[in-house]
Amino acid sequence: MDFDAVIHNGILVTVDNRMRVIEKGWIGIQEGVIRAIEATPPGIPPPAAGLTIDAGGGIVMPGLVNTHTHLPMSLFRGLADDLPLMTWLNDHIFPAEARFIRPEAVRWGTRLSCAEMLLSGTTCCCGGYFLEDVVAQAVSETGLRAVLAQGVIDFPAPGISEPSQNVSHARRYAEKWAGRNDLITPSIFCHSPYTCGDDTLKAAKASADDLGLLFQIHVAETRFERDQAIAKKGLSPVVHLDRLGILDDRTLMSHCVWVDEADTAIMAKRKCAVSHCPESNMKLASGIAPVPEMLKTGITVSLGTDGCASNNNLDMFGEMGTAARLHKVATGDPTALDAATVIKMATSDGARSIGLGNHIGSLETGKQADIIVLDTCAPHLTPLYHPESHIVYAAGGGDVRHVLVAGRPVVRDRQILFVNVDEVMNRVNDMSREIRSALKKD
Amino acid sequence: MDFDAVIHNGILVTVDNRMRVIEKGWIGIQEGVIRAIEATPPGIPPPAAGLTIDAGGGIVMPGLVNTHTHLPMSLFRGLADDLPLMTWLNDHIFPAEARFIRPEAVRWGTRLSCAEMLLSGTTCCCGGYFLEDVVAQAVSETGLRAVLAQGVIDFPAPGISEPSQNVSHARRYAEKWAGRNDLITPSIFCHSPYTCGDDTLKAAKASADDLGLLFQIHVAETRFERDQAIAKKGLSPVVHLDRLGILDDRTLMSHCVWVDEADTAIMAKRKCAVSHCPESNMKLASGIAPVPEMLKTGITVSLGTDGCASNNNLDMFGEMGTAARLHKVATGDPTALDAATVIKMATSDGARSIGLGNHIGSLETGKQADIIVLDTCAPHLTPLYHPESHIVYAAGGGDVRHVLVAGRPVVRDRQILFVNVDEVMNRVNDMSREIRSALKKD
Repeated sequence: MDFDAVIHNGILVTVDNRMRVIEKGWIGIQEGVIRAIEATPPGIPPPAAGLTIDAGGGIVMPGLVNTHTHLPMSLFRGLADDLPLMTWLNDHIFPAEARFIRPEAVRWGTRLSCAEMLLSGTTCCCGGYFLEDVVAQAVSETGLRAVLAQGVIDFPAPGISEPSQNVSHARRYAEKWAGRNDLITPSIFCHSPYTCGDDTLKAAKASADDLGLLFQIHVAETRFERDQAIAKKGLSPVVHLDRLGILDDRTLMSHCVWVDEADTAIMAKRKCAVSHCPESNMKLASGIAPVPEMLKTGITVSLGTDGCASNNNLDMFGEMGTAARLHKVATGDPTALDAATVIKMATSDGARSIGLGNHIGSLETGKQADIIVLDTCAPHLTPLYHPESHIVYAAGGGDVRHVLVAGRPVVRDRQILFVNVDEVMNRVNDMSREIRSALKKD
Repeated sequence: MDFDAVIHNGILVTVDNRMRVIEKGWIGIQEGVIRAIEATPPGIPPPAAGLTIDAGGGIVMPGLVNTHTHLPMSLFRGLADDLPLMTWLNDHIFPAEARFIRPEAVRWGTRLSCAEMLLSGTTCCCGGYFLEDVVAQAVSETGLRAVLAQGVIDFPAPGISEPSQNVSHARRYAEKWAGRNDLITPSIFCHSPYTCGDDTLKAAKASADDLGLLFQIHVAETRFERDQAIAKKGLSPVVHLDRLGILDDRTLMSHCVWVDEADTAIMAKRKCAVSHCPESNMKLASGIAPVPEMLKTGITVSLGTDGCASNNNLDMFGEMGTAARLHKVATGDPTALDAATVIKMATSDGARSIGLGNHIGSLETGKQADIIVLDTCAPHLTPLYHPESHIVYAAGGGDVRHVLVAGRPVVRDRQILFVNVDEVMNRVNDMSREIRSALKKD
């Protein structure tokens, strides 16, 4: 067999159903798809290929899947921290968004986030924002794979001054991007059950269903949200959404911090997926999602960084380490969320959460070649007893050396290939000076 | 004034009493000491010096102070994770220590940890282990500053087969290293109140006092420890130690997870310091130390990584981010442990915790030039509104570009100067293969 590309001399962490690790192996790629994944017999060179990548004895694994983010918000990274949630939103984030979220800012913020994600080993992200057509165009130029949703909210928003148009606007966006680009899948994202009325929720979900697309929504992120829902409607946010018929296996619910047993039973029954965002939930003091309980009921739980304004980076390695440690201390059980479970959340379960489970998320023949190579030749990754342990507890995004999406190298030797990073940083720095001086004057 | 070295073109995060940030400034160093720290007037070049380091517009800050670690334990990084504490200790860590903690292993493990710490911006660490004379010798060759304690425990331990000799052995070690090396300060470390009898605790503390040295001890790390102390003696670990006269301003207590208000009141009154190790406490499911309460009572709280076997890295940037996020979610207060507080914990308060507050921990004239330079020209650190925010919430050890200890460059452009990293990694990898195959056979 002739391969377009071969990656060899690596420890292959496959994340297949058996969590197989091949201590020294190679992967053959043809037309963007993994066609062979095998152990390397001693003394036998890897097969010839158009492109040969030597993993240098490092870890080769599926690219990470970040299932919840808001790409343009990297513009506001570190703009305001350590504040009560409502002060943070009302005095900093909302004014900055109202004033600066224009197509040009969205374009550069998105490019910045894509560069950060690719350089730190994320090959696919899922999320939503406003002006999503601009976001999708910008992402498509970077080589990242993404599920990108137009946001729907019952208030005037960037690009949709008339809220009554929000669902039809999102639908037009989704129709435009459906089937347009192999790496970009459109989606529709209702902001939340408290910012979208019942009719909006039902119409948006119906549009997503018509087009066969993922429906996303923030659910039960804060205690306040849950308490208010119960006070106003007598229903938890999850029960409320279920009564509206929103919950099914094409619904991704982000956060789900304040859900009880009855809620998780419904979520499991409806087969919806959850994007868990531990660092954002911790930083905003929202709470700790009951992830071990959700996993026990069979819910697919994946990991998201959330937007940069509340994290403040997009490093999925950090998110894995935090998830693994947080649920141990929260439950008092050091066996909770073991390394293999967390790696699955960040790869194969991430892919399943966003409807791409058959295409990405593991190193298996027939899957898309979304692959990352970690450089393990560093003091903080020495010695190496168990590669899964290092992935979760010791590595960081800076250890990523090579990144391929659909078999195409997008990062080589830590250099990103399809984003002019210097230009992106310069433009974003210019914008940040404007933002800072404008907000100071307000 | 003639300077031996000048660092210029940096954002100076001084961590002085006013947490002053100089947006563009320079630092002049003479004989290892900071002699000038000033804003750079536009158009004026920095003063001439034997060595000129261009910070490239990045963040210049005091080197990080890791106040709790066990250097040789990097040999066991990732050897066993995700296990109940007693299984982890009894089936993995203790057998590995009993079998492999020999001078040669201690030497190479220490070198590995020092390389990791220096490369990730830690310029001073504090901790203890056995065979500490070997540890101190190894550290002294790397250029790292350290407070290093011989461990004391009422069981046979590596290098001390006869427990009755433990305190005199520690004292001899401390006497040997007192005043011997500008960068190494000896100390004495009683393992814990449950592994050291009252006489041992009192004798070890008396020896440390005689020599004017820091006394270290693990206290109230687990609920089990606290419950057992109360069951056996009717006293909490803190009250027990206080009754023995162990607690004063030269005592550093590590962990302090299970302390109540009465305990913290005693700790504050006695002016002892605490080393908080959030990642280790989370990973081992020990619990969450009441850090905001300790800070309110005026206790000096610093940060430690703990040993590599329970973290699994020595990156103090990760520890800062984890501490800041963990206490927000634990208290439900997003203003808890703000970025400035956490930076102080990792620098100036770290220095105070280990008796070096007058010498290191901030960028101020008269202090030792323990300085690190972060490269902020990276997507994940763009844009930059507030340097303190990036230090805690967005940066990682991999962003450290230059490191000076006592004015001497020990890392330049991410390359470590006084450790042969390749040799260290090769030797540790060889040892890890032995450890793995020996433990498999057991």
